[in-house]
Amino acid sequence: MKVAVLGASGYTGLELLRILLRHPEFEVAAATSEQRAGRPVGEAFPALRGRLDLDFESVDDAAALAGRVELAFTALPHAASAPAVETLRAAGVRVVDLSADFRLRDLDTYREWYGEHPAPARLGEAVYGLPELHRGALAEASLVAVPGCYPTSALLPLAPLLRADLVETTGLHVDAKSGVSGAGRNLADGYLFAELDGDCRAYQPGFQHRHGPEMEQEASALAGEAVHVSFVPHLLPTTRGMATSVYLRPRFEANAADARRALAEAYADEPFVRLLPEGETPNLRSVVGTNFCDIAFVADDRNHTWITLSTLDNLGKGASGGAVQCANLVCGFEETAGLLDTALLP
Amino acid sequence: MKVAVLGASGYTGLELLRILLRHPEFEVAAATSEQRAGRPVGEAFPALRGRLDLDFESVDDAAALAGRVELAFTALPHAASAPAVETLRAAGVRVVDLSADFRLRDLDTYREWYGEHPAPARLGEAVYGLPELHRGALAEASLVAVPGCYPTSALLPLAPLLRADLVETTGLHVDAKSGVSGAGRNLADGYLFAELDGDCRAYQPGFQHRHGPEMEQEASALAGEAVHVSFVPHLLPTTRGMATSVYLRPRFEANAADARRALAEAYADEPFVRLLPEGETPNLRSVVGTNFCDIAFVADDRNHTWITLSTLDNLGKGASGGAVQCANLVCGFEETAGLLDTALLP
Amino acid sequence: MKVAVLGASGYTGLELLRILLRHPEFEVAAATSEQRAGRPVGEAFPALRGRLDLDFESVDDAAALAGRVELAFTALPHAASAPAVETLRAAGVRVVDLSADFRLRDLDTYREWYGEHPAPARLGEAVYGLPELHRGALAEASLVAVPGCYPTSALLPLAPLLRADLVETTGLHVDAKSGVSGAGRNLADGYLFAELDGDCRAYQPGFQHRHGPEMEQEASALAGEAVHVSFVPHLLPTTRGMATSVYLRPRFEANAADARRALAEAYADEPFVRLLPEGETPNLRSVVGTNFCDIAFVADDRNHTWITLSTLDNLGKGASGGAVQCANLVCGFEETAGLLDTALLP
Amino acid sequence: MKVAVLGASGYTGLELLRILLRHPEFEVAAATSEQRAGRPVGEAFPALRGRLDLDFESVDDAAALAGRVELAFTALPHAASAPAVETLRAAGVRVVDLSADFRLRDLDTYREWYGEHPAPARLGEAVYGLPELHRGALAEASLVAVPGCYPTSALLPLAPLLRADLVETTGLHVDAKSGVSGAGRNLADGYLFAELDGDCRAYQPGFQHRHGPEMEQEASALAGEAVHVSFVPHLLPTTRGMATSVYLRPRFEANAADARRALAEAYADEPFVRLLPEGETPNLRSVVGTNFCDIAFVADDRNHTWITLSTLDNLGKGASGGAVQCANLVCGFEETAGLLDTALLP
Repeated sequence: MKVAVLGASGYTGLELLRILLRHPEFEVAAATSEQRAGRPVGEAFPALRGRLDLDFESVDDAAALAGRVELAFTALPHAASAPAVETLRAAGVRVVDLSADFRLRDLDTYREWYGEHPAPARLGEAVYGLPELHRGALAEASLVAVPGCYPTSALLPLAPLLRADLVETTGLHVDAKSGVSGAGRNLADGYLFAELDGDCRAYQPGFQHRHGPEMEQEASALAGEAVHVSFVPHLLPTTRGMATSVYLRPRFEANAADARRALAEAYADEPFVRLLPEGETPNLRSVVGTNFCDIAFVADDRNHTWITLSTLDNLGKGASGGAVQCANLVCGFEETAGLLDTALLP
Repeated sequence: MKVAVLGASGYTGLELLRILLRHPEFEVAAATSEQRAGRPVGEAFPALRGRLDLDFESVDDAAALAGRVELAFTALPHAASAPAVETLRAAGVRVVDLSADFRLRDLDTYREWYGEHPAPARLGEAVYGLPELHRGALAEASLVAVPGCYPTSALLPLAPLLRADLVETTGLHVDAKSGVSGAGRNLADGYLFAELDGDCRAYQPGFQHRHGPEMEQEASALAGEAVHVSFVPHLLPTTRGMATSVYLRPRFEANAADARRALAEAYADEPFVRLLPEGETPNLRSVVGTNFCDIAFVADDRNHTWITLSTLDNLGKGASGGAVQCANLVCGFEETAGLLDTALLP
Repeated sequence: MKVAVLGASGYTGLELLRILLRHPEFEVAAATSEQRAGRPVGEAFPALRGRLDLDFESVDDAAALAGRVELAFTALPHAASAPAVETLRAAGVRVVDLSADFRLRDLDTYREWYGEHPAPARLGEAVYGLPELHRGALAEASLVAVPGCYPTSALLPLAPLLRADLVETTGLHVDAKSGVSGAGRNLADGYLFAELDGDCRAYQPGFQHRHGPEMEQEASALAGEAVHVSFVPHLLPTTRGMATSVYLRPRFEANAADARRALAEAYADEPFVRLLPEGETPNLRSVVGTNFCDIAFVADDRNHTWITLSTLDNLGKGASGGAVQCANLVCGFEETAGLLDTALLP
Repeated sequence: MKVAVLGASGYTGLELLRILLRHPEFEVAAATSEQRAGRPVGEAFPALRGRLDLDFESVDDAAALAGRVELAFTALPHAASAPAVETLRAAGVRVVDLSADFRLRDLDTYREWYGEHPAPARLGEAVYGLPELHRGALAEASLVAVPGCYPTSALLPLAPLLRADLVETTGLHVDAKSGVSGAGRNLADGYLFAELDGDCRAYQPGFQHRHGPEMEQEASALAGEAVHVSFVPHLLPTTRGMATSVYLRPRFEANAADARRALAEAYADEPFVRLLPEGETPNLRSVVGTNFCDIAFVADDRNHTWITLSTLDNLGKGASGGAVQCANLVCGFEETAGLLDTALLP
């Protein structure tokens, strides 16, 4: 099946190309990039030399793409993505969108965090692209809103606990640490190797990061009541990977065995969620370059606190890997197709 | 003033040598190392070549050291340190101890976390070496117990808030991230460059890490009541530096302005604590190689949560820098002597 | 086809597992590890959890393996490998050996650099596992000696120039830089993250490294006369990848166009050697995790010097990737089977 | 003595500030930065918070600076530096210039590599700022041209060998590896953490880098005849540090003992050059953050090749440290004043 990748020269776009090059069903028929339009992909990115014989195109050709592909991945910045999605959808192309444009179901919330929405009419069509939560709907979807990396890493451990009503819905603290690729190709001092190597910092602490409302939207839907999250993202001195600690207060009557059972049942058959044995903690290196999310559950009964620890690759399961998993569902392919990578070791 | 460094070839020992080499008052007259006894310091560690003309000695000579130095820094492993401290103190040498042996005032707690105490009679003599909390006592001290790096990074932001009774004493979450040098020169797979580079993981989550009871001891003393802490340390893919986020629930009547005022008053004149302007977050690179602790305060009123963010160098303010600051106080020298380094930039 | 990996818990062994897990023809039926015998692979290495359902076995069972597999990869230390190879070969198992035991054709040279050879009778059977040089012989081989990473990175750019008699055979300087995984899982101070991060050093400079005689053996065979190489390996502060600069003196009558043509002709159809356009230089990140070797040729006519620049993954094309490429040839599979990875980007 | 740092917000400028803050004689009275003019230094660079109470000024005030300082460090880009130097010199201010503007004594060579020279009349006044070669002249100098980092790292090992006529003056190969800070604060894709971490590449190989003609100028002066150098710089995945290998052909009659003796005699009393014992190789971590240059000499007699290995901090001895060493000489201060740092270990 021929597919297009819009915004293919950005970090999530490049990761899509890498995954799709080994996918048994999808074939990349078009890759767009404004800055590199007209250049051969392998010349602009030597890692792809000899792997993909295409020239980058301009995204102006979004309509023209319609006739050439059955599905498109849009890896454009928010606000730039929605109009392209609109064009593609109008032409009948199925779309897996990696931007933030179709993640928030409430238009006012979108406006508050991102500004005016460029294609509000399509909002209702989008399915939130977390297969572990919405597998059924994804199989029917024509437009998928791939979640942000932070929400994915927090929601996967949280979902079974919220659904089973085991934890309080206030006072959740999400302390997340992300590799720097999560910021995209950002030409600012702080992202230079010489300034970021060996560094680590919290940023936008509290409830200032755009992934906060997205987390709350999904967590509230799972809990059946409003969930409030305090969220502190951190930048790690590494390229890829995200490690998230969620601090939870168990419901009065809940115990740790219930929580472990809920997690075990939820993820027993999930191909990409690995629940670790008690006593182990997840790490980045075991998931980087893969579509896995590794999860551990810790009960600190002494402090009436539960802690979930989860790791994933922010560009893998947290973005492009997750997107391909959704596309597999949308197209009726094997859900794991093209995604069974093992992390580099060492 | 002639001083000795016991355990000088470990990571905190080497950092002591580095700092003391530029100190205007202290002169390193002896450096011990079991593994490297007899070898010239500069041969074992080329960074010190031409900087320190000494041979490593064996710590067996602890008693013999007594006649040669007025003060000793003991950077030995816990349980190994206490006997050396006992010998040195019995001979009248003032001691700044970087091990865990004299940090916990309660013998049972020590026993629970570290095993039998080798020199319990000296416990009462030790002053907890955090000048920002115990400056007066340190000026009179003959034995200083330098705090662990995690407790220092959590207590400095917490102290003014606990002392002013602004935060609840239960439900504190300490999410701390440390450079790998915090583990010392640990010859295990997980500390090899090839396995740790680009990695990050939580370890001993909940209340399993030995720095937990130490944090609670000091926090409780500050609050005047028992403080319970949930503590999740993480390993960062960097050599030095520690970033700590503490999640707090404000007392019912307390507001963020009170908290900011308490912090500002506490640290207005402290030479090594830098309170950041609102809106900024501390980072590792600005404190690595220094004795600074940078602190930010964040009020997430929406979630009734306060967050403190703090960074320091685990081997600097979190160990050897803090130890020299204490030694300066003990000896009546300028508190900042030898400690006014600026971080490498870039 | 069922295969075994002996020494599967070492760095080249783990990389073999990673590659074989995605190979369309090979199935890992046995993985040995002395230190981890009896433990499930996925428990010992969480990156492999859910990917490979095997327990590590002891290599004592080498004979027993014979009945279970058709081909074995031996990733054991030199001297330990040869006896296992002997056992496997005696039982009719084809062997791809990643150790140094069968690389040197001259027994005296082996003895000088490695000590007594444990299975000299098998030396004549081995084919040097560089498909770009020995593709025909490999198709017939029952025992493959996979080259060292340094020789591979130097020989690939050198081979066409030596074969065409374009460069002098004395005064070659090989300045090579390797990621630290090249040293294997080496529990020594110098390989700890805290001591190696941000470091770089030359080691065993001149002609002290064991890969030197191997380079000269193959280079001499290519040139048809004795080639002498001065070789300075360096350790890079990164896990994987090797960048090699070779300084050459062109033959009196040779010119740069001849050299470029020789390289272009040699590698026009090679699936894993990418000759870069003039003006570009190869980098590590484009080859890490892959089986590619990227090569550039530079003529510094002003100084009568030619320079080749080459990069590869020391664990990929330089070890386990190269080994699988050989195994593909030995078994008559598509040469690229299982090896068409693209480097992570970013 | 009051000094100014022009271009103080660049990487060499910031390193000057860091060093000068601990200097016993120099006081930073002015720091200029076009981009950050008007901002407090400690606000723009949190590492300097509490360390330097100055606002950045605009370099337009170069003339106005004259009355306020006795000496100026100019850390501006080439071509931008020369006019500021002209202004300062005309006003009688002594200048230590870290740009390339006064390094090349031949105006045509400058023009070929950098373009039109903005202040050719001052060229004759400049002394090349390598104290180990020009100590006498520096003591009298009013304008110092601080060498480039690559030339410093190659010339220090080469100088004694060239002066003693022990090596051939053709066929020298300089293979140098530099931390990324050598490129300055360069907002290009290739310098982003996400693209450079774990990478390594040669760039401008052969004789394309601007430090080539500078190396040859000084090497030729030392040899008393034209020296030709083939030069391949590499970018390392680290912030600071430079490791340089120089491949040399000994003169027919010369032997390794002569070479060792020449090096030993040249550097016996040099405070910042450490000649390593035979068998050791220099590394980056031992010199990063310091003004040291560590050197090893290797004779590969088998290949009639000598190799020098040298390491330094490209921002330390290779730029700002070297500049302060020169300033100490110019002002008659202790040559080591402010420069006796020890590298962070670990």
